[in-house]
Amino acid sequence: MADATAPLPPDGRVRAVVDALLPIVDGGRFAVKCVAGEPFTVEAHCFTDGHDALRVMLRWRAEGATDSTEIEMQACPNDVWRADFTPPVPGRYRYGVLAWVDHFRSWRNELKRRVEVEDIRIAALVGAALIDAHAQRAAGADRHALQAWAQKLRAHADGEPPGEAQALKALALDDTLAELADRYPDRTLAAAWPGELPLVADRERARFSSWYELFPRSASREPGRHGSFKDVEARLPYVAELGFDVLYFPPIHPIGRLQRKGRNNALAAETGDVGSPWAIGAAEGGHKDILPELGSLADFRRLVARARALGLEVAMDIAFQCAPDHPYVKAHPQWFRWRPDGSVQYAENPPKKYQDIYPFDFETADWRALWAELESVFEHWIAQGVTIFRVDNPHTKAFAFWEWVISSIRQRHPQVLFLAEAFTRPKVMHRLAKAGFTQSYTYFTWRNSRQELQDYFTELAHGPGAAYFRPNVWPNTPDILPEHLHGGERAVFALRLVLAATLSASYGIYGPAYELMEHVPRSPGSEEYLDSEKYQLRHWDLQRPDSLAPLIARMNRIRRDNPALQRNDGLEFVACDNPQLLAYAKHTPDGSNVVITVVNLDPYRAQSGWLDLTGTAVDIDPEGAYQVHDLLSDQRFIWQGRRGFVMLDPAHSPAHVFRLRHRVRREHDFDYFL
Amino acid sequence: MADATAPLPPDGRVRAVVDALLPIVDGGRFAVKCVAGEPFTVEAHCFTDGHDALRVMLRWRAEGATDSTEIEMQACPNDVWRADFTPPVPGRYRYGVLAWVDHFRSWRNELKRRVEVEDIRIAALVGAALIDAHAQRAAGADRHALQAWAQKLRAHADGEPPGEAQALKALALDDTLAELADRYPDRTLAAAWPGELPLVADRERARFSSWYELFPRSASREPGRHGSFKDVEARLPYVAELGFDVLYFPPIHPIGRLQRKGRNNALAAETGDVGSPWAIGAAEGGHKDILPELGSLADFRRLVARARALGLEVAMDIAFQCAPDHPYVKAHPQWFRWRPDGSVQYAENPPKKYQDIYPFDFETADWRALWAELESVFEHWIAQGVTIFRVDNPHTKAFAFWEWVISSIRQRHPQVLFLAEAFTRPKVMHRLAKAGFTQSYTYFTWRNSRQELQDYFTELAHGPGAAYFRPNVWPNTPDILPEHLHGGERAVFALRLVLAATLSASYGIYGPAYELMEHVPRSPGSEEYLDSEKYQLRHWDLQRPDSLAPLIARMNRIRRDNPALQRNDGLEFVACDNPQLLAYAKHTPDGSNVVITVVNLDPYRAQSGWLDLTGTAVDIDPEGAYQVHDLLSDQRFIWQGRRGFVMLDPAHSPAHVFRLRHRVRREHDFDYFL
Repeated sequence: MADATAPLPPDGRVRAVVDALLPIVDGGRFAVKCVAGEPFTVEAHCFTDGHDALRVMLRWRAEGATDSTEIEMQACPNDVWRADFTPPVPGRYRYGVLAWVDHFRSWRNELKRRVEVEDIRIAALVGAALIDAHAQRAAGADRHALQAWAQKLRAHADGEPPGEAQALKALALDDTLAELADRYPDRTLAAAWPGELPLVADRERARFSSWYELFPRSASREPGRHGSFKDVEARLPYVAELGFDVLYFPPIHPIGRLQRKGRNNALAAETGDVGSPWAIGAAEGGHKDILPELGSLADFRRLVARARALGLEVAMDIAFQCAPDHPYVKAHPQWFRWRPDGSVQYAENPPKKYQDIYPFDFETADWRALWAELESVFEHWIAQGVTIFRVDNPHTKAFAFWEWVISSIRQRHPQVLFLAEAFTRPKVMHRLAKAGFTQSYTYFTWRNSRQELQDYFTELAHGPGAAYFRPNVWPNTPDILPEHLHGGERAVFALRLVLAATLSASYGIYGPAYELMEHVPRSPGSEEYLDSEKYQLRHWDLQRPDSLAPLIARMNRIRRDNPALQRNDGLEFVACDNPQLLAYAKHTPDGSNVVITVVNLDPYRAQSGWLDLTGTAVDIDPEGAYQVHDLLSDQRFIWQGRRGFVMLDPAHSPAHVFRLRHRVRREHDFDYFL
Repeated sequence: MADATAPLPPDGRVRAVVDALLPIVDGGRFAVKCVAGEPFTVEAHCFTDGHDALRVMLRWRAEGATDSTEIEMQACPNDVWRADFTPPVPGRYRYGVLAWVDHFRSWRNELKRRVEVEDIRIAALVGAALIDAHAQRAAGADRHALQAWAQKLRAHADGEPPGEAQALKALALDDTLAELADRYPDRTLAAAWPGELPLVADRERARFSSWYELFPRSASREPGRHGSFKDVEARLPYVAELGFDVLYFPPIHPIGRLQRKGRNNALAAETGDVGSPWAIGAAEGGHKDILPELGSLADFRRLVARARALGLEVAMDIAFQCAPDHPYVKAHPQWFRWRPDGSVQYAENPPKKYQDIYPFDFETADWRALWAELESVFEHWIAQGVTIFRVDNPHTKAFAFWEWVISSIRQRHPQVLFLAEAFTRPKVMHRLAKAGFTQSYTYFTWRNSRQELQDYFTELAHGPGAAYFRPNVWPNTPDILPEHLHGGERAVFALRLVLAATLSASYGIYGPAYELMEHVPRSPGSEEYLDSEKYQLRHWDLQRPDSLAPLIARMNRIRRDNPALQRNDGLEFVACDNPQLLAYAKHTPDGSNVVITVVNLDPYRAQSGWLDLTGTAVDIDPEGAYQVHDLLSDQRFIWQGRRGFVMLDPAHSPAHVFRLRHRVRREHDFDYFL
């Protein structure tokens, strides 16, 4: 060790440094997410020793392609370089950066500063040698032009009488010829960021989606009759008019009879009890089959097609678990963990117990066959037209499996989206998103106070997870009737809907429970619904005059009309002097669409206060007037400068959703607002 | 592509996840820094799907060693696991983490929750099988004990009448036997964080150091005579009494005669002008030689030894550049970039011009020989007893060179420290620290306002750079007379000294200019000193009655006595209602030493205000009384609760440096403070 020397690098003359490449997830172990057809911005921290000029290139390619495209990055302050590229179609991509010390550019920069005649003369000769080298890398007319330039510089410099230094300098700094020389740089000492970073490009719905969940078995018009796909077909116009674009069903497969749960999660089912749709599998079949009461595979395909015609994509629930009478249990007993008494420990997600469900044993020696079979379940439904999967409790299945299966499916079907229903610890939820889930459920359901909402949505929009974790927020689900809804106040349902629809580009509701303000818990303080659809049929009166349907339809229309609400990256919270009012702005990257939402978090009393837009990116003239147009009430207000007054009475409206309209001044004309 | 399937992992049964390993620098590309002999804390984010128990191990080894040491990590909230290890000696180390789903621990956790007799019976049988498997991995008495336990469980479970379930449960949960079983876990499905992270352990001075810079040539007692190492020897007790532990000299090599600079950076030297020590090399020799006026190599070695005896380490300036008459220029012309007129472009660090200096060309084809020669310069001085190098302008030399040479030198001499004198852009300074520099100069010299100081030192202490960037802060240097010192106010010199010495564990001053409050710039607004020692001899009257020496000595004594000031990780700023007062607390990890510093940033007027310790880690009884002992003035104050009043008159003292003393209550005795 005493005489040891550290190993030399392959070429010690490489002086450019690519210190950071961003965005990046865990050093490149996982992919960043973006949307195909939209610019994706890459940054790199590049510099060199001393004061030489650098040139920096962004390279990108589709995964599997061998040729890369190069884009020159632009220098920003603080040694940051930036460029963007637009992945044309959904799929996986790779991007990297390389940089080199550019002696031609350095020479040009230095020459600009030179004033002494002798300095200019020497510089011209140095430049001539550099330009000759560029000419060697060029061909044809370009080579000739560069050679002629070098020659001219040399002739001037050698024969130059003192007075003509400025002419020589001008010749050396010729912009057109410099551009030509730039095309043939010396890249032999280029430094590359080690490796390429993975990028997943999704279709637009990954970024912007509005989900509506319903139980097909409760879709029948007559109370007591088991609903079917045909009934859901009849319901489609209702959902479409509400403005949703994803229609999500709990599992539609045969339901186990062994250990079947009764109403209200009773341990023993009574005759006629329909059981939980998540207890999948019975004599009629398993994950690739349909509960006969719902209809046939042909019915399902027709429903998917009809929904699509109305702008609705059907999302299927994938719950990888089995009722004790699922065909897998007999056909593949090695996929389950058997105890000495010949039983299998039922599934748990503490404190919840699923006595009617067996989990798979992901440590089975037969894991390859298990993975292949589970993958084939996705394939089966993709073949029926399904393009979105909502995955039940993914955090109770092996992470390595998700990483593999999502990557595998998306290699063949890059348009397919996956929503992770993991209500669990933060790092676990993030790992699932890294492993490939397109969207993720969130803690929104339990975030109520102004501070909680600000902290959480700031983290979601601007934290490091924003590169890969896309939130999908739900004010309720069949599993979660949050405590703040237990009172059944219309104002609470309304304000939670507005929060979900404006804070997050993707959100969903479990309906018709939500629009009909279903709110009675199974027991006081429980998050379970009384008479939950999870265990029984329900009948919903969609025509009830107090339904929230009009508000929901309006909110979804506003979302469709305002691109600022279709993304999360432009979210900024706005100061307000009344702590009961939560205010935030969202804007598109180009600033052309700005929406300022103000929600009264107090469902009982009118609240008023002053917003202060200081410090936000909202581009307003601090002296001038502008209009804020409440898209919920269609009222218009004129605000002046950075502060604006609001008053919200929950008896009338839970919120303002203001679109900012700028004053436009026409010559010889009066003002109007755009 | 249509039928492509993603590749399967080697073993899909691995369910444990090691998601993050911290601290980490650029995904493991660069080393984290720590101090040998002190615990180094590692965290990992580990979890698995579902609810099984995990065991997590930290592994570490010295680089080059093949055997690792394992330490079991402890679970903290939020899926964070933590452990520490203590690198015994300076050097390079590697650390990693592995985790596995532990079925024995999972079984134990589950059994604890079981109450039904039949559940306990089945669990006992499951446990017996698990314990048998552990026994298979054990030997001798351990194996027998485990086998006996399994057998006993089986016998109980099989023959058990209902009433004895609690006894069976107690037997199954036996703590001593569980500890035994824990020694033989099934690690076949362990997940490891990919690779190992590099760690550099330094000696303590890397973390805590107090530097004093002086020009040996100005150390003579008689004005006008060139100082020598012997003169510096006579100066050693003075520096030691000031309490410094590093004595740093500008370059001590022969100074070039070609292009030599005159006084005040004049382009032409006059007869007798001594030139800049950074214009290294002349007929007498280069980087391995000594300017004859300073003395011999033997004199230098004796000086280094005498200094060491007084607790002072000599730090040598390494400036890799050459005067035009440096022997390298003739011997190795290929190490310089020659222009068509036969000249070399002199060095620049805009706006500064060094007409007396040639830079090396790090793109020379002969880079291997250049690197080897530069490395040998370090080796030469290490052989003379030098263990600290202050590197001049490292950002104008290739980064790859620094990474290689520091690693190479430290492989043989792990005690050697390197300070990067790079006053340049943030990312460049950080890259040098990542490349291996032990300490780095900072922007402190130009940070004056309360907000600036808070922001900058919060970043230094708690930003991501804290893992590798160790600040060394200087209120002045021979190159930088910052504008706030131009007035020459004693209060400004005093408050900047206190800030440097308390905000940063490492700091330095350029003396005797600092203690004698040298403050006249070469021209108004310039950062250059008038009659700078960089270009001429100076004579300093160390006995001047207004010298700041007593304050500096006191401050360095306080630093030595208070471990909280010897590290940066415990820094917290403290709220104060007077914006002219800057207050901050520092504490040791165990909280046994707490120092609260309050600096009056206004050098002209007395300022007073209330500190509020709420929200800091300072552990005080919010109701009780405690003492704050000003170590500068030796005054003691009793504060009650979280708020404390201070008043500072710059005519008397720029600051309080309070040591927190807790009230101790003895039985039957009066109170006193510890």
